[in-house]
Amino acid sequence: MKEISQYGKSALLERLNAQFDFARDSTLAVGNRAFASSPDGENAQIVATGLFVEGIHFNPVYTPLKHLAYKTVTSVVSDIIAMNGRPLRLAVSLAVSSRFGVEELETLYGGFRAACLDYELELAGNDLVSSTSGMTVSLACTGEARPDELRSPAGAQTNDLVCISGSLGAACMGLQILERERRIFESSPGTQPKLDGYDYVLRRQLHPAARSDMRELFASTGATPSAMIALDEGLSAGILQICRRSGTGARIYIEKIPIAAETFAVCEELNYDAVAAAMNGGDDFELLFTVPLSCYEKIRNLGGFEIIGHIVAPELGAHIVTPEGAEIEL
Amino acid sequence: MKEISQYGKSALLERLNAQFDFARDSTLAVGNRAFASSPDGENAQIVATGLFVEGIHFNPVYTPLKHLAYKTVTSVVSDIIAMNGRPLRLAVSLAVSSRFGVEELETLYGGFRAACLDYELELAGNDLVSSTSGMTVSLACTGEARPDELRSPAGAQTNDLVCISGSLGAACMGLQILERERRIFESSPGTQPKLDGYDYVLRRQLHPAARSDMRELFASTGATPSAMIALDEGLSAGILQICRRSGTGARIYIEKIPIAAETFAVCEELNYDAVAAAMNGGDDFELLFTVPLSCYEKIRNLGGFEIIGHIVAPELGAHIVTPEGAEIEL
Repeated sequence: MKEISQYGKSALLERLNAQFDFARDSTLAVGNRAFASSPDGENAQIVATGLFVEGIHFNPVYTPLKHLAYKTVTSVVSDIIAMNGRPLRLAVSLAVSSRFGVEELETLYGGFRAACLDYELELAGNDLVSSTSGMTVSLACTGEARPDELRSPAGAQTNDLVCISGSLGAACMGLQILERERRIFESSPGTQPKLDGYDYVLRRQLHPAARSDMRELFASTGATPSAMIALDEGLSAGILQICRRSGTGARIYIEKIPIAAETFAVCEELNYDAVAAAMNGGDDFELLFTVPLSCYEKIRNLGGFEIIGHIVAPELGAHIVTPEGAEIEL
Repeated sequence: MKEISQYGKSALLERLNAQFDFARDSTLAVGNRAFASSPDGENAQIVATGLFVEGIHFNPVYTPLKHLAYKTVTSVVSDIIAMNGRPLRLAVSLAVSSRFGVEELETLYGGFRAACLDYELELAGNDLVSSTSGMTVSLACTGEARPDELRSPAGAQTNDLVCISGSLGAACMGLQILERERRIFESSPGTQPKLDGYDYVLRRQLHPAARSDMRELFASTGATPSAMIALDEGLSAGILQICRRSGTGARIYIEKIPIAAETFAVCEELNYDAVAAAMNGGDDFELLFTVPLSCYEKIRNLGGFEIIGHIVAPELGAHIVTPEGAEIEL
């Protein structure tokens, strides 16, 4: 049996996709777990989906159910925002084992409700099924945009600037702290977890927010991205997806990658490489986007994001560049 | 801890929904695991979702993966059709454990592909995540309709006729046969399952089709339903949902419920009540709908569906009526 892990997820999905050749003309753009279509060329409707599995995407031992619900919504809303869309509606499907009671579901829905209020989402669908083991959260989120506003990971051009909406790696280090305390607790039950002083990284892990504000920034400055993706699996995966979808290469300068002081401090304490946290850590939900070089003057003093590199020709590949000028292939 | 089963799914979902009060004006209709909206009042966009869990919704021991994939698509397409919509696009999200290899995923996607061809769906999204146990299939299907064409389980009126697009209970009896053979196999491994002669009920269980043809029937005759739902959990659940959403009662005549001769034969062999199979068995995917009494002359000789009862005032409740005239509350 050929194992899925031997293939790699992207390559396998591409191979499976290749069996399908029926496409509709009204499909306008394909994002990351999201697609946009417009039957009449007027309003584009976006659908983003997310599937979150206990033991893989979250551990209920240290993830409060309310935060879990909020975070799953942040994830699908981020995928709508990354298409430059406005989120509108949410459909929740839950699979839960008999381990969960009514009170726990009410706590979970408190998180869905908080997210719906913050992101101005209508709860338009709600389903509950049984599960043999643990909890699975499946979300579908819809949004809208004008067709000319739509963005996707495709569209980057050589010489475009690569930008990021905020600092990276914090959610990853929050997870490391939670995992450390879980291991300590498991080896000596009764120990109180030591979480004081880690507020920033824990908040970024447990209660991340989608960058809804970036849509307004783009609209107000006219510096619309050429390509965009929300980071849920680290900077490296995001860069590679933009390069693959756009047919380009990229150069990312390590010293330009924004990493918060709080994140550096936790990295030092845990002897963890901060650049690795930014490149490979998940759940940051920052927007990675490219803008034409011609926008540089327009955006250089804006604030709200950092320029971390640029797009190059496809044959040059995707590399990170060390402060010494060495290039490391992603 | 208050258990979910003490509550009942519908009551619990209603209680959880009550926490949410933000609604968008452009939401036009809410179906069964589906909703429709239109930003501009022109084209309504429908989104239907489905979550299918191994060990709950399917058993891979006797469900070929290709059929499993096809059936999950049939389920979400049925929910689009029940809103009187035309299915357009499909997004697949899979959670799979390491038990599944690349070949099995290819077989599964063969089923998704066959369903996309039959239902004219574009595969617009495709995601793969890990699972700690077994397989979970999560689907989002989009469709469209003119706003005036949209239907939902709400909308039935007193005196409307209750109709069903085809025979019920066959999928349930197919499952009983598969379960019987599984039990025999487990008690004496090596036994060959005896499935000959059960073609009809097995096909209805393993390879059900969505009633895409009904949309044309409605359009060509002008006898548009006042309320509609696709049956995936039996006639009883469907009737109750129409009554709840429409604020009505109903009378269903047992002797009018269409049950195929093949289904009766299996019921007799297994000593299983055929009416119970129709009322409580799942996976038939027939359309249950109501039409105004004034359409009776228009539809009486049409064929393609059966009239099984009528809608009554809410205070009269939802009952099935025996051939002797006794009323049994649902």
